[in-house]
Amino acid sequence: MTSHVDSQLAYRESVVPRDRGDVREIVESSGFFHDFEVDVAIELIDDALAKGERSEYLFVFAERDGRTVGYSCYGEIACTRGSYDLYWIAVREEHRASGIGGRLLAFTEERIAARGGRAIWVETSSKPKYEPTLRFYARAGYEIAAVLKDFYAVGDDKVVFVKRLG
Amino acid sequence: MTSHVDSQLAYRESVVPRDRGDVREIVESSGFFHDFEVDVAIELIDDALAKGERSEYLFVFAERDGRTVGYSCYGEIACTRGSYDLYWIAVREEHRASGIGGRLLAFTEERIAARGGRAIWVETSSKPKYEPTLRFYARAGYEIAAVLKDFYAVGDDKVVFVKRLG
Repeated sequence: MTSHVDSQLAYRESVVPRDRGDVREIVESSGFFHDFEVDVAIELIDDALAKGERSEYLFVFAERDGRTVGYSCYGEIACTRGSYDLYWIAVREEHRASGIGGRLLAFTEERIAARGGRAIWVETSSKPKYEPTLRFYARAGYEIAAVLKDFYAVGDDKVVFVKRLG
Repeated sequence: MTSHVDSQLAYRESVVPRDRGDVREIVESSGFFHDFEVDVAIELIDDALAKGERSEYLFVFAERDGRTVGYSCYGEIACTRGSYDLYWIAVREEHRASGIGGRLLAFTEERIAARGGRAIWVETSSKPKYEPTLRFYARAGYEIAAVLKDFYAVGDDKVVFVKRLG
């Protein structure tokens, strides 16, 4: 696991127990996730805490002045060779629109490339609430690979983005 | 849970311990699945045996003369309303090409519709080996919703089928 500093942001990849509370705060602060989704975010931290390097879930925590301000969670998709899923990326509400999300995403992409990842897949919703999310990925060079109509609910499509690496 | 007879085929929806061995035999006999995928198939049976009706995995077992000749496993996809995933459908090798797969699929679709399912999603591989699988779903009225290029590996795309119900 590496640690890396990028203009006042430090990146940490090892998971520590206090990440449970920080991740809950970060994910809840975003206002983008349902309660059951917050629970899933914590379960993935618990999986990594319990299994260490055997966990299929990998993390990057972005820290500023010793405080965790955002994080990403990713992993190689089962039954694939080199396809990674970006399960989560979230930044504390009070730090949003400061560029942290884009830098955290770029660092996460570097880590995936270093592991031999060929492609990063991201799934999100087509609902108007997620327009900033769609713009975020488009700006970062992600392309829409598929739109699954009415997937989440009637009128709520699944949008699948992909970024090919290397 | 219901039981239903359809021209020498009986359908059973409750999971019993001997399904562990039968599912392993059925899935291995097909020759379509890797060892780790066979393990996953058994884990889903174990989940249903342990949790009963609280399991998110639902099953249909097709029986002929008291023997389980095929099965399907499906469930509502997390975070969706009415989107179902058909995780598995497999028929014993010696009973293939006898129409059991199509009848088992049709019965499974009826059960999903009865639960209020709006759509059934199926994921498969684009590799030549799976051409019979692609034809099976096309014949059953499934449409290709997306093709995710090089998803499983270079040259091995993910094909997403959907069938809208009702």
